[in-house]
Amino acid sequence: MKILIIGGNGTIGKVVRDHLTQNHELIIAARTNGDVNVDIADSKSIENMFQKVGTVDAIVCIAGEAKWAPFNDLSESDFHIGLNSKLMGQVNLVRIGQKHLSAGGSFTLSTGILADDPVPMTTSAAMVNGGIHSFARAAALELENGHRINVVSSGLVIDAVDKYRDYFPGHNPVPMNKVVNAYVKSIEGKINGEIIRIYE
Amino acid sequence: MKILIIGGNGTIGKVVRDHLTQNHELIIAARTNGDVNVDIADSKSIENMFQKVGTVDAIVCIAGEAKWAPFNDLSESDFHIGLNSKLMGQVNLVRIGQKHLSAGGSFTLSTGILADDPVPMTTSAAMVNGGIHSFARAAALELENGHRINVVSSGLVIDAVDKYRDYFPGHNPVPMNKVVNAYVKSIEGKINGEIIRIYE
Ligand SMILES: NC(=O)c1ccc[n+]([C@@H]2O[C@H](COP(=O)([O-])OP(=O)(O)OC[C@H]3O[C@@H](n4cnc5c(N)ncnc54)[C@H](OP(=O)(O)O)[C@@H]3O)[C@@H](O)[C@H]2O)c1
Ligand SMILES: NC(=O)c1ccc[n+]([C@@H]2O[C@H](COP(=O)([O-])OP(=O)(O)OC[C@H]3O[C@@H](n4cnc5c(N)ncnc54)[C@H](OP(=O)(O)O)[C@@H]3O)[C@@H](O)[C@H]2O)c1
Repeated sequence: MKILIIGGNGTIGKVVRDHLTQNHELIIAARTNGDVNVDIADSKSIENMFQKVGTVDAIVCIAGEAKWAPFNDLSESDFHIGLNSKLMGQVNLVRIGQKHLSAGGSFTLSTGILADDPVPMTTSAAMVNGGIHSFARAAALELENGHRINVVSSGLVIDAVDKYRDYFPGHNPVPMNKVVNAYVKSIEGKINGEIIRIYE
Repeated sequence: MKILIIGGNGTIGKVVRDHLTQNHELIIAARTNGDVNVDIADSKSIENMFQKVGTVDAIVCIAGEAKWAPFNDLSESDFHIGLNSKLMGQVNLVRIGQKHLSAGGSFTLSTGILADDPVPMTTSAAMVNGGIHSFARAAALELENGHRINVVSSGLVIDAVDKYRDYFPGHNPVPMNKVVNAYVKSIEGKINGEIIRIYE
């Protein structure tokens, strides 16, 4: 398969990339690194990316941001960072990507455990994750051409424990191979409309 | 208690209103009807409402819109209708309302079954509902002054069956008294961070 991975050089992305590259042709996209540049927070940039990339068999997003801060420090425009990037960025990737995805191809989006099990400072991050879960379930009812859509929702991954440990007291770090398998299940399997929760 | 109900004259709101008015002092807010005007999609309008209303003991939102249409007909700006109204409208009501809610007071937001069990044409509506569920869970970890927050997520309510029946094949309409009880449980009880699902 020809697989486009947005965020394919990130902490999670590079592990997924290193596995998928064994059997597939990959195109990595990101704002500053990768084969092609894209900022998913800008739908014009998504259109431009697909003009360069052409048709692919799977579109994977392991990217997207939201602002972490105490609820009382988050301004309305702080909330819009997550709405534009991780939420509408992924929605727009599906909206626009449909025209560049081969029949039977799949979308795999990324969220995280905060949707179901938030911690302090994540009102915005939890919100966008929960929004993507419900969006994907709804979109699965309507996608055409045999397209499928699933979401990988990981807990704190082992490769990010040093960075985020203090925010997640008592959370069990998730082994990278289980996270990789979740992406493989969505891309190479036949499931549709699933939220693949990898929380331990 | 002095209770502010945004949307308290709507299909669900008026039934909740007619119950709560027996034991509480109510202030109804909406864009075009009620005791005070507010458009929750505009955070300035929320600020103005609280300047008029002063401090209350419970803030209830039974209002908020999102555009229903086939996924392929929804433009990026169509998605922003729901993001601005039902999603950020309710988030801003909590952000701003905290300063006008007495100690121990509660927020009760409204979503719907689409978050968990979507139907076609609801990619935007489902998304905002799912976002509010995760937002409320996260906000409950951080609210101060003994403030509580819960969400009532109803299925298609009996009083709206004539209007929406065709969109919800096989869904069981929800009796109004069960929906009223969900709001009462949040307002008069002590629960916090709960998504009260009333789906049958
Ligand atoms: N790390 C965890 O434990 C964990 C757990 C659950 C969920 N997640 C989620 O999984 C995703 C990836 O996490 P990660 O830890 O691998 O993040 P990461 O190390 O920061 O990598 C993110 C990658 O995405 C790219 N990217 C970021 N914003 C982008 C944008 N607007 N447009 C295009 N590319 C963009 C980045 O490259 P550029 O900066 O060059 O664009 C980078 O390559 C995030 O959504 C994160 O919330 C992470
Ligand atoms: N009906 C159902 O079966 C059902 C099931 C589950 C969830 N829900 C949700 O429950 C909520 C209420 O539903 P409903 O059927 O009672 O709706 P409704 O009959 O349309 O009533 C909505 C009320 O909210 C007010 N309102 C709407 N947008 C507003 C805004 N931006 N700012 C302030 N007030 C606003 C309206 O008055 P103005 O027009 O004057 O502003 C109206 O009084 C909605 O969020 C809906 O999605 C409904």
